[in-house]
Amino acid sequence: MRELRFDPIRNRWVIISTERARRPSDYTVANNQTNTIDKNAIACPFCEGSEDKTPPEIFAIRRNQSKPNSPGWRVRVVPNKYPALQIEDGAFRYATGIFDVVSGAGAHEVIIETPDHNKGLGDLDVDWITDVLISFRERIKDLFLDPRLRYVLIFKNHKAQAGASIAHTHSQLIATPMVPPVLKQELTVCRENYRSKERCLICDLIKQEIEFGKRIAYETDDYIIWAPFASSFPFETWILPKKHLYNYALLNDDGLSKLAYTLKLNLLSLKLLLNDPPYNFVLHTSPPKFTRPGHPEHWDSIEFDYHWHIEIIPRLTTIAGFELGAGFYINPTPPEVATEYLRDAINSYAGKTQEKKISLDR
Amino acid sequence: MRELRFDPIRNRWVIISTERARRPSDYTVANNQTNTIDKNAIACPFCEGSEDKTPPEIFAIRRNQSKPNSPGWRVRVVPNKYPALQIEDGAFRYATGIFDVVSGAGAHEVIIETPDHNKGLGDLDVDWITDVLISFRERIKDLFLDPRLRYVLIFKNHKAQAGASIAHTHSQLIATPMVPPVLKQELTVCRENYRSKERCLICDLIKQEIEFGKRIAYETDDYIIWAPFASSFPFETWILPKKHLYNYALLNDDGLSKLAYTLKLNLLSLKLLLNDPPYNFVLHTSPPKFTRPGHPEHWDSIEFDYHWHIEIIPRLTTIAGFELGAGFYINPTPPEVATEYLRDAINSYAGKTQEKKISLDR
Repeated sequence: MRELRFDPIRNRWVIISTERARRPSDYTVANNQTNTIDKNAIACPFCEGSEDKTPPEIFAIRRNQSKPNSPGWRVRVVPNKYPALQIEDGAFRYATGIFDVVSGAGAHEVIIETPDHNKGLGDLDVDWITDVLISFRERIKDLFLDPRLRYVLIFKNHKAQAGASIAHTHSQLIATPMVPPVLKQELTVCRENYRSKERCLICDLIKQEIEFGKRIAYETDDYIIWAPFASSFPFETWILPKKHLYNYALLNDDGLSKLAYTLKLNLLSLKLLLNDPPYNFVLHTSPPKFTRPGHPEHWDSIEFDYHWHIEIIPRLTTIAGFELGAGFYINPTPPEVATEYLRDAINSYAGKTQEKKISLDR
Repeated sequence: MRELRFDPIRNRWVIISTERARRPSDYTVANNQTNTIDKNAIACPFCEGSEDKTPPEIFAIRRNQSKPNSPGWRVRVVPNKYPALQIEDGAFRYATGIFDVVSGAGAHEVIIETPDHNKGLGDLDVDWITDVLISFRERIKDLFLDPRLRYVLIFKNHKAQAGASIAHTHSQLIATPMVPPVLKQELTVCRENYRSKERCLICDLIKQEIEFGKRIAYETDDYIIWAPFASSFPFETWILPKKHLYNYALLNDDGLSKLAYTLKLNLLSLKLLLNDPPYNFVLHTSPPKFTRPGHPEHWDSIEFDYHWHIEIIPRLTTIAGFELGAGFYINPTPPEVATEYLRDAINSYAGKTQEKKISLDR
C-alpha cells in the first residue's frame, strides 16, 4: 500500500510507501553514488527483442502491423515495474488526528522512446519524436477518464544524476489522486490572474518576452524557447506555445510535429553546449475535469486559464541545504547569458535541419 | 551584482548572479560529479594555523585569550569567499515589466565548527556543539539588526552529494532581503492557524505526536526528535522544542546545551544507521522584526505564532524530474519504520552518554 500524506506545515502532499519499506541497509548502494544501469543491448529490458522483460504494454506505436509485446515498435508504453503509485490502491480519503491521508491510487508508466539503445531523445528524427509526443497525448487522454485521478504528470530523467536508473532513453508518467504542489501553485496563479484581468498570465509574459528578446533562444510560428526571467537552474528553458492552449491533449499530430522539431533543437543545443548533461524535463498541462459519480466523464480539462508548456532543467548544480531547507535556488548563470549560448547552438542546428527537411515530412 | 528575481508563475524568489556568470565550460567539472575537497590538514583553509587562508573572522569562540585570526579558537565564523549574496549590493526593490527584482543585499558566512579536520559535527563533545549553537545565535542577533535583511538562514551541507565543497566540518549562514519561500509558507500557515484557533499549530502537532508515540524517536524534558508524518525524505527528522518559542535567538546557553545534546544523538544515530550519510540540516526560526527608517531596531522577531525547529535531511535518494517538476516527493521509508531504527540507535548512544556525563558539565 502506498499513501499520500499531507504536510500541514509545508502545505504539500508527499507519497509514502508503507509496504516493502526501504530499511537502512537498502540505502548503502545509493549512498555510494547510484549508477545508471547501462548493460549491453541483450540485457537491457527496454531493447527490441526484450519485450518479455517488461510488464505487458499499455500502448505502442507500430507502423508495420507487428503484434503487441513483440519487436517492430517505435514507441512502447509499459507499467513501471516498481510503481510509486498503482491503480489497485483505490483513492480513499480520510483524516488521522490533525493529519490527512489519501490512499495511493494512481499510475506509473514508462514511455520507451525508441528501440535503439544508443540514442537520446534529441538524437531521434523529428517524426520519431512526434510519435513519442503522440504517446504522451494518448496516455493523458486515457488516464483523464479515470475519475479517481487528479493529474497526469509526464517527465524525463536523463542520466543517473538526474534520477535515471536505466540508461536506455525513456520518459515516465505518474498519475496522482491529488494535483501536485507545483502545478497547484501555477494553476492558482493563472486562475486568479484571469479572474482579475480576463487575460492569461503566460500569454502576457510571452508577449513581453518576445518584445524584449534577450531571453528568447528560438522562435517559430508556433513555439518559443524561453530562458525564464527567474530561472532556478542554469540553462533552464521552457518551450511555450505562442497560442493560448490550456490542455496539451488537445494538440493534433501536426501541432505535435512542430513541437517535436522545437524540442529536438532544444535538447541538441543543451547536449552540444554542456557535453550531454544530465537533465529533467516535465510537461505542465491542465488537470482532468473533476468528475463525480453520475457526471459524464471526458478527457478534457476545465482549467481554461492555464497555458501548457514543457520545462527543461539541466542538472549542473547540487541541490543543497539552502535550496531544500529554504526553497531558495541560486542560479549562477543569468538567463540572458544562457540565451546567447543557446541561440548560437540552436541556430547552427536549425540551419542544418531546415536544409535537410528530413523530419517534418512524415 | 547579484539579484533576487520573482518568478510570477512559481510564486517564488530566485537568486541570480549577474556578474561573473558561469559559462557552459564552467560546468564540465560539476557534470562529472563534484567531489568534496579533502586535502590534508596543511592545505585545508578551515584548519588551525590556516586562519590567513580565509577572509578575516566576523566572530569566534576562544576560551584562552587567543587573538582574532590566530590559532586557539573553538568555533570561527568567516565570510564565504564566494558569496551568494553580499551586504554591499544594497537592497533596491524595483519592477521590470511584469517582473519584480530586489538587488542582492545579504550575507553569506561560514561557521567552522572545530579546528579538528577529522571530526564531524556529531562527533564533537556536547559542550563544543553548544559553542557552535551559540555562534549561530550570536550571528542571528547581529544580522537581525540590519534593516535591509528579512531572514537569516543557517544550514549545513555534509558531504559532496549534499552540496559541501570543503570536507572540514562547517555550517553556513545566508541572510536574505526576502523571506525564503519555504519559511514564508510555514510562517503563513502558523499565523493563520493562530488567528483562527489562538493555538500554535506546531504545539498541537507535538502534543498529538507524543500521545501517538510511533514517530517520536527520542524525548527529553525539552526536546523531541520527530520523524514527520509526511516526511519528504527517508529518515528525515525534526528536532522540536516542546515549549513554544518562536525565536531561536532567545535561547540561553543552558537551552542550547540541551539542544546540543539532542542534536548530537540525532546526528550520531544517522551516522551509525546509514554509514555516515550525506545530509543537510536547516534551522527554521522566526524572521527579524520588519523595521522601517526611524523605528528602533532590535534583534527580536514579532512572528510569535511560529515555533522554531531544526530539520535534518539525510540525502539517500536522488531528486529527479517528478520532485523538481511537480514538487511531489516520494519517500520509500515510512516515518514509523524510520522511528524504530532511529530509536534503537539513539537509545544505545544516549545510554552511553548519560553514563559518561562528559558533555553536559561545562
